Amino acid sequence: MADKKQVRIEDIGEFGLIRRLTDDIVIRHPSTKTGIGDDAAVLDHGRSQLLVTSDLLVEGIHFDLTYVPLKHLGYKSVVVNLSDIYAMNGHPKQITVNLAISSKMKLEAVEELYRGIKLACSQYEVDLAGGDTSASLTGLLISITAIGTVAKGRAALRSGARKGDLILVTGDLGAAYLGLLLLQREKKLFEEDPETQPKLDQYPYVLERQLKPEARHNAIALLYQHQVQPTSMIDISDGLSSDVMHLCDRSKLGCRIYADKLPFHPETESVAEELFVNPVVAALNGGEDYELLFTVSPEDYPKLHDVADFTTIGHMVDQNEGYQLVLSDQSTVPLVAQGWDGMQSE
Amino acid sequence: MADKKQVRIEDIGEFGLIRRLTDDIVIRHPSTKTGIGDDAAVLDHGRSQLLVTSDLLVEGIHFDLTYVPLKHLGYKSVVVNLSDIYAMNGHPKQITVNLAISSKMKLEAVEELYRGIKLACSQYEVDLAGGDTSASLTGLLISITAIGTVAKGRAALRSGARKGDLILVTGDLGAAYLGLLLLQREKKLFEEDPETQPKLDQYPYVLERQLKPEARHNAIALLYQHQVQPTSMIDISDGLSSDVMHLCDRSKLGCRIYADKLPFHPETESVAEELFVNPVVAALNGGEDYELLFTVSPEDYPKLHDVADFTTIGHMVDQNEGYQLVLSDQSTVPLVAQGWDGMQSE
Repeated sequence: MADKKQVRIEDIGEFGLIRRLTDDIVIRHPSTKTGIGDDAAVLDHGRSQLLVTSDLLVEGIHFDLTYVPLKHLGYKSVVVNLSDIYAMNGHPKQITVNLAISSKMKLEAVEELYRGIKLACSQYEVDLAGGDTSASLTGLLISITAIGTVAKGRAALRSGARKGDLILVTGDLGAAYLGLLLLQREKKLFEEDPETQPKLDQYPYVLERQLKPEARHNAIALLYQHQVQPTSMIDISDGLSSDVMHLCDRSKLGCRIYADKLPFHPETESVAEELFVNPVVAALNGGEDYELLFTVSPEDYPKLHDVADFTTIGHMVDQNEGYQLVLSDQSTVPLVAQGWDGMQSE
Repeated sequence: MADKKQVRIEDIGEFGLIRRLTDDIVIRHPSTKTGIGDDAAVLDHGRSQLLVTSDLLVEGIHFDLTYVPLKHLGYKSVVVNLSDIYAMNGHPKQITVNLAISSKMKLEAVEELYRGIKLACSQYEVDLAGGDTSASLTGLLISITAIGTVAKGRAALRSGARKGDLILVTGDLGAAYLGLLLLQREKKLFEEDPETQPKLDQYPYVLERQLKPEARHNAIALLYQHQVQPTSMIDISDGLSSDVMHLCDRSKLGCRIYADKLPFHPETESVAEELFVNPVVAALNGGEDYELLFTVSPEDYPKLHDVADFTTIGHMVDQNEGYQLVLSDQSTVPLVAQGWDGMQSE
């Protein structure tokens, strides 16, 4: 690689860069009539409803390039958007990608980022259908819009939960946040002593959950397969506390969440112990798990009871009962939304 | 205003900010089933095709807050996206807005920006259906996605032009670039002598074209009214040279553009004279006019001949004839794409 002549972005210009980044993009959906290369993508969706979501990742706020590999970053920036489509009980079909690139960034770096974007597109079978690329005076910024479909009447809104509904979560919680703490610890050690070798290979699970999270498309398939329409749904991006409160807020309800029901991966628990962090706190306030949090009516509950990937963690109550975390001794503490907040620039 | 207590963005948090910015948003389209407040907007489009486009505006690259009022900036950032939908012969319906905001930016400033965004939504009858707001370590960044519809078979792609097609343009050219030159001149004078009062009120037209451009929705209505399907279409964002070359490139054709046919506003001509700029050069390379450039078949041409807002500026030729600008003495010079390039950070 080192002897490959380096092409500078200035030399190929914006159009050259876009062409270089998008030349090999494959269109997967018949509904993508025209992709990149025109003023707008042309999509053609038949009888289903359309879902659109947009997310922004800013260098220094949402990611730190000193420890986030660019390919992972590209992958993750797509996944977080697809996760929002799944959180509506939908199926993502297309994305558009807007990038603001620092002039210091090398073409190879942008291509590496795009490799991650394209890998996610291929893994989740979505089409990269357009976007814009611009210079940035400082860091890298990635803004992605995802478009998906959902059968009419099947969209799972945040507002549909009813009193008595069970609260379920997919997979396990808290791992992404512990992965971040590990990366931050290694960065600090490295800054203090550049000779230090990072000790990361014994934590593959929590690091992957932070660096290369997956969106829970299989949960949507499971719900469909078990013929359950969730009454409300959201993905866990800000932390369980914040996100369950979004469901409550929109549904005008309160909730009771049971601390000892929260699902953890064994590695999450051992890293939590090593870092002196309570895994419950990591789950509640850490964020970035991209698991799905949803409610189902008590009648539907038996259908999901045996699904290994779903854990029941609580139920919805009257709004005036507030948001309660029930501890193992049956005492309760109020949940507080202090999730990972993109507005806090530290 | 001065005695109004200033609310800081840090105090209200991301969710507070989003709520504050979006509380008063009105949904206009029956197709917007669910707007802001869920993981994704739910759109429902019947039998038409869907158009999606995305654009990025970066402080210091695309705008300079020392002379661009925030409300105008918000308005313009929507308009440039809608322009891309019109350039497909479509009708915009929804937008999503992603903002990265410097921590130094006051809440009132963000609200002023949003006032412009909402004004454009109301003027063009589109719904603000979602988006994301984040901190930025430096300047302001605006990423907008617009979604529109077009009847099946009616999308005007860049690739559809045929040899012999006439090239038409809406409105007039070069004004936005001259507006920018004026603003840059005044900024320089102000930096040299802060006592200087800006002399801008004698140039209302070119300044408005730069600061608060409009998208040519009326041109789409005119084409429909005269029953003309353009064979190809693009909006002029990078300059006539670049943009006509995009049509040629995609349609595998060359073109002949007649310099003395290019439409100019009288004020554009007088400002050009004052600034020693050739208005033809401003039209070719200036960009940001957001006029529509389109081709029609010779059979359709008589239907549009009398439309005052359309000017015929050339025709499409064989690819091997290249891209030619025909001067008033009938000599030709090759067109060069050196449009306004968002990748050049100066």
